[in-house]
Parts: sequence; C-alpha cells; structure tokens
Amino acid sequence: MPSPPLPRRLLLGPGPSNVHPRVLQAMAQPLVGHLDPTFLAILDEVQERLRGLFGTGNAMTLPLSATGSAGMEACFANLLEPGDEVVIGVAGVFGLRMADVASRIGARVTQVETEPGTVLDGDAMTETIARVRPAVVAFVHAETSTGVLQPVEKIATAAREAGALVVLDCVTSLGGIPISLDEWGIDAAYSATQKCLSCPPGLAPVSFSARAVERASTRRTPVQSWYLDVNLLAGYFGQERVYHHTAPISAVFGLAEGLRLIEKEGMETRRARHSEAAKVLLEGMAPLGFQPLVDEPHRLPMLSALRLPAALGKAGEAALRRRLLDGYGIEVGAGLGKLAGSIWRIGLMGENARLTNVESLLNALRRELAQSEERPRRD
Amino acid sequence: MPSPPLPRRLLLGPGPSNVHPRVLQAMAQPLVGHLDPTFLAILDEVQERLRGLFGTGNAMTLPLSATGSAGMEACFANLLEPGDEVVIGVAGVFGLRMADVASRIGARVTQVETEPGTVLDGDAMTETIARVRPAVVAFVHAETSTGVLQPVEKIATAAREAGALVVLDCVTSLGGIPISLDEWGIDAAYSATQKCLSCPPGLAPVSFSARAVERASTRRTPVQSWYLDVNLLAGYFGQERVYHHTAPISAVFGLAEGLRLIEKEGMETRRARHSEAAKVLLEGMAPLGFQPLVDEPHRLPMLSALRLPAALGKAGEAALRRRLLDGYGIEVGAGLGKLAGSIWRIGLMGENARLTNVESLLNALRRELAQSEERPRRD
Repeated sequence: MPSPPLPRRLLLGPGPSNVHPRVLQAMAQPLVGHLDPTFLAILDEVQERLRGLFGTGNAMTLPLSATGSAGMEACFANLLEPGDEVVIGVAGVFGLRMADVASRIGARVTQVETEPGTVLDGDAMTETIARVRPAVVAFVHAETSTGVLQPVEKIATAAREAGALVVLDCVTSLGGIPISLDEWGIDAAYSATQKCLSCPPGLAPVSFSARAVERASTRRTPVQSWYLDVNLLAGYFGQERVYHHTAPISAVFGLAEGLRLIEKEGMETRRARHSEAAKVLLEGMAPLGFQPLVDEPHRLPMLSALRLPAALGKAGEAALRRRLLDGYGIEVGAGLGKLAGSIWRIGLMGENARLTNVESLLNALRRELAQSEERPRRD
Repeated sequence: MPSPPLPRRLLLGPGPSNVHPRVLQAMAQPLVGHLDPTFLAILDEVQERLRGLFGTGNAMTLPLSATGSAGMEACFANLLEPGDEVVIGVAGVFGLRMADVASRIGARVTQVETEPGTVLDGDAMTETIARVRPAVVAFVHAETSTGVLQPVEKIATAAREAGALVVLDCVTSLGGIPISLDEWGIDAAYSATQKCLSCPPGLAPVSFSARAVERASTRRTPVQSWYLDVNLLAGYFGQERVYHHTAPISAVFGLAEGLRLIEKEGMETRRARHSEAAKVLLEGMAPLGFQPLVDEPHRLPMLSALRLPAALGKAGEAALRRRLLDGYGIEVGAGLGKLAGSIWRIGLMGENARLTNVESLLNALRRELAQSEERPRRD
C-alpha cells in the first residue's frame, strides 16, 4: 500500500526537466472548482504571463489541457481543412510529426526537408511557398530532435506575403529564449510545460492570432476535434468562462507558480543563464570526445545535440546512459529518428540550466569513461 | 510574487471532487523521466488497477494524457471513419456531446433521445440498431448532466448482435460503482480522474477491447487525431514503452496513489458508502423543497440531480450557489443544457461521499434558506 520511494533524478534529457519545489508545492494545494472565481483569476494570470513569454497580445493564448503534441495538433486541426495545401519545413522528427498530423486532417502536405542538424533553407522555403500558395506554413523554432535553432522571420515573412497563416513549434524554446510571435508574424504557436518552463508535462501553452481565430471561425467544415476546437475553447478561455471541458486545476496551479518564477528572474537573465550553461557543457564534453552536431550560430542553448565518441558504439551508448541513470541518477536523452544511436541530447532547461548540473554530468561521465577504458586492460 | 492563498472548498458539484491529501503529496514528488524504469513500473501498476476498476482484461487500458472529454474523442476517433454509421443514445448533455464528436469525424449519426432525467429506452435502441446496422453504438453509463444510471446490458447485447462495437461513457461511474466492461460486452470506455477517483482533472482512463484495437488497426483511413491514435499510443502504453508523447508524470503519480486508496478500501465498501451518502442527502434535501429529478431505481449514487424549490427562481438559485461558495466554501453544481436553472447537481463522489459532507451542506442550506425567508419580512 505505501507508495514506493522514487529515486532522485537530475533530468538532463530533452524534457521533462526538473521542477522547482515551489511548483511542486503549488500542485499539492487542495483543489478549487474549475469555474471557481479564485481559479479563474489564476487562469487570467497564467494567460497573461503566457502572452508575455510568447511576445503577443493574442487574446486566445491559453494552456491547452493536454501535452505539447496536442498543442501541435490543435494548431493544425483549427487552421487546416481537408484538401488545404500546407508547406512544412522538416529539419527533424518534430517537423516530420507536423507533416503526419496535417496529413491525417486531410491536408495536402508539401515538405521542404533539410539534413538533421541543419537549419531550413530560407530560399527553398520561400520558393516552395510561392509555388504552392499554401493555406498554412509550419516549421519548428527549436527542433528538439537535433538541437537546432531555426531563424524565423524570413520564412514567416514569405508565408504572410503569400497569404498563408504561419504555425511555429515553440515546444523547447518557450521560457528559455525570447519569443516574439507578433513581431515575427506568427499566427499559431504551441509549447509544452516540461521544457524551459520547468513544470511537469501535461499542459500545452498555445497562442492563436486574430487571423487564426477568424480562419477557425469561418471554416467550411467543422474542426474535426471537438476537444481542440478553438471556437469552443474560446468559451472557457475567453471572457465568458463557460464550461467546455474540466481544466486540469492542479497542473494550472503549478504552471502559475512556474510562470511567476520566470517573471521574477526575468527573461534576459534566464537567456544568459541558458547560454552560459550550454557553453560550459560543450567545453567540458569536447575533451571526452563528444562533438556538437550543430554549427555554432544555430545551436540551441537549452538543448545540445552531441555526436558520440566513435569508440562508444550503439550498444555502448545505451549502456552508458543506463549507468549514468543507475549510478548517478542522471538522465540524458538518446538520439531520435535518423540520429538514434549516433547522438545524445543533453538538456539544460529552465531550472536545470545551472553550472552545478553541468559539473555533475561531466564528473559522472569522466569517471564512467575512465572506467570503460580501464576495463579491457583488466581482461 | 508569493502565490495568493487559496480558499478551502468542499467540492460537491459534478466534479472535480476533493482530492485525498496522499494524492496531493504524491503529485508533489520530484519528477522522474517518462521513460525512466521507475516511472514505467508505476504506469504498469496504474494500468493494471484501471483494468480492475473497469472490469476488463483489455491490454489497451491506460490513462490518456488529457481530460475526460478527450477520452470520449479518443473512442470515436479510433473506431469511426468518415461515412460510418453510429447510433448514439442521448439522455443528456454528454450524449449530445457524443453526437457532436462523432459527426465532426464524418460519421453518420442517428440519435435515440429520451427526456433528461430518464433512462434510454432499450427497445427503441434495439430497434434503431437493427434498422441502421451501425459500426458503433454509444451511450452514457452515468449521465453527469442528469444523474441517471443507465442499464447497460440490453443495449450492449443488441449492439453486438448487430455486429457493432459498443462505446460506453464511464466518466462519473468509474470508482463509484462496479463496472464490468468484459461481462457487459463493451469495446471502448472512457472516464476521468476528477470524479469518483478523487484525483485532479487531467487524465482520461480509457480501455479498448481487442476487437476495438483490431478495428483501429485495420481502418481504411488513418485516425484523424495523431495524439489519440491507439495504434501509436500502443507503442508507449503497450509492451514496447517507446516514446509517443511525454506522459504527464505528476498526474500519473497522483492517479497511482488514488488507485491504491481505492484498492485499500475495496469497491464494495466504496459503493455502499456512496449509496448511504446519497440516501441521507435526499432525505435531508426533501424538507428543504429539493426533489429528485430521477426515479428511484435509476438514480446515480454519486451524483444527485434535484429539482429546485419553485420559490427559488433562476436568479435565486445562482445567488444561493454563490452564497454557499462565499459563505461556506461549498460548491454545488448548476443544471446543464435544458436543465440549466431548474436543477442542482450535488456530487458526493469518491472521497467526498461521506455523511459529514452531507451534514455540512444541509446545515449551510438550512441557514441560508431560513435567512431568505426572513429577508422579505424585514423589507
């Protein structure tokens, strides 16, 4: 009957990241109702702070009641109808996921691909947008599978000039680097709580521009998903505050506290903290044989993709990750998709972007790699 | 910066209900990763206990990473394709919601309606099923908008004899009364954590039979929702435990603890506790002028729909609910849909199904109603 004690983990993978104790305590507060005036005041506060982080005045900015992937689905489900053209920039697993999600809705998907670890080619995107004249253009700001930071404005401008709505994946960027949806001309964006917001997974912050809301309200066909239909969500997350579904109250308590902590620190300090932690990580990993996958100007500060030492091998990397977890309580992320077995993804996200965490990882790795080298000699 | 203190609430509406302190504490545990062996062990435990509560051996029994309404959508999205026929029993708001969800998927919906507060007519359902020969038959076990407990077996048998898959809404019943999906012949069922499981909202326990999984895997068209596609969910919630989306770790910690508490109590004790609390509630409410909407044999024990005293009026009932909330910290539920303004819904769910809570509500109401009667005389 008693719950087994959980091991302490330092979560240095691609998310979840560790959660501030104040956020955990906020989630442990006794519930109030989802239509309780005190809860609605917290929801107001959360929505306003999310607008700040997203860099937008969009009224329809809200924590969707599901994880980040549902945020992606919400953007496409509301803005695309069967037969619509969509151009998607694919620079990794999450661009591919966008294409899958959009095609299931019945959209006609044109992918513009680039090698994992590189940024999308702005010219190729621009030419394709001009040729296809899509209803929606979508790409990933911070590709969680490769650690690439994608420049936004050139593609967004080309899309808007062609009359398309622009969807941006901000899952890994929100709360770690500044975002300016309005300045960049983004119509729909989504994120997740378990990355740089340092909250548990479970909510997807999303933001829809007035143009996006208009598109959703003037569709020829209903949004296929009742749960994600922004026309219905507006009833609860807008001025009326009427019942649609029951909001995940405790998760919203946690997010409210997480957003307060971010506001207290300030985004500029937070960005600098992420940059410094990433720099020290890369400097420490290089002598151990881990080399950055991504060229310097396009590296994400909160998530570093590192090519593994050749000697490690596919079985070796999995075993080493397991030794880090079991021996040191440190989780790092494996490669995903094409990069499985050839890179690690090391996240220093939100609360975790601190030099003490970098040192913990480097010390553990140094010890484990030294032991690996000694072992064959003892045989 | 410090988070404002929240008021203490006794949540006697249609959910959320109050959460056991052990569940709150479980959610406040530091995170482990969503692929961590210790987390996957907890997920195993949760899935096995959910099978017990659902009365099923279905492998695909899992806590979906969204609220109960997404559980509804998951059942229809997986089992229906555009053009499929579906027969839906509509006995209140949640039956209507089923019809909306199914029609957005492109299914051809035939509704069999009954007056709010009554059960579906088994003969009418049987005749319609025989005539329409639908792919799916769906109805609500415990209609949260009316407090009606629907007999299941006659309709489920008729549906299976006609070759249809059967979807059952168990949002308000799971954990409050015994459920026997396998014995009843149900192919897909969904629930929510904030009702009789006494956890916060945020997860939707769902269960799919082998027949349902086969239907989903042999569809002509892909499931419209990537997030809810059981073919993909099976990768993470099945034997492989590979990444699909990031599970809401803290919410699963909470659900695990909530399910342990239910197992410790035992479903028979729990059912009896719900029945007794409902009985004492109705006995106490009658002298105050609140009369049951539902005939005795079909009343839900965990949610009582009560017609309001005629003198109260529509503005009066909203004001009285607000006085209960502000003056006593007690939340009760308003009527929904056709019944808005004419009934209250009083939930005694899970942890809240206790006589002390009934007494708290009755005492508060007696005082408030007495004061209302005095007021006109003072004018």
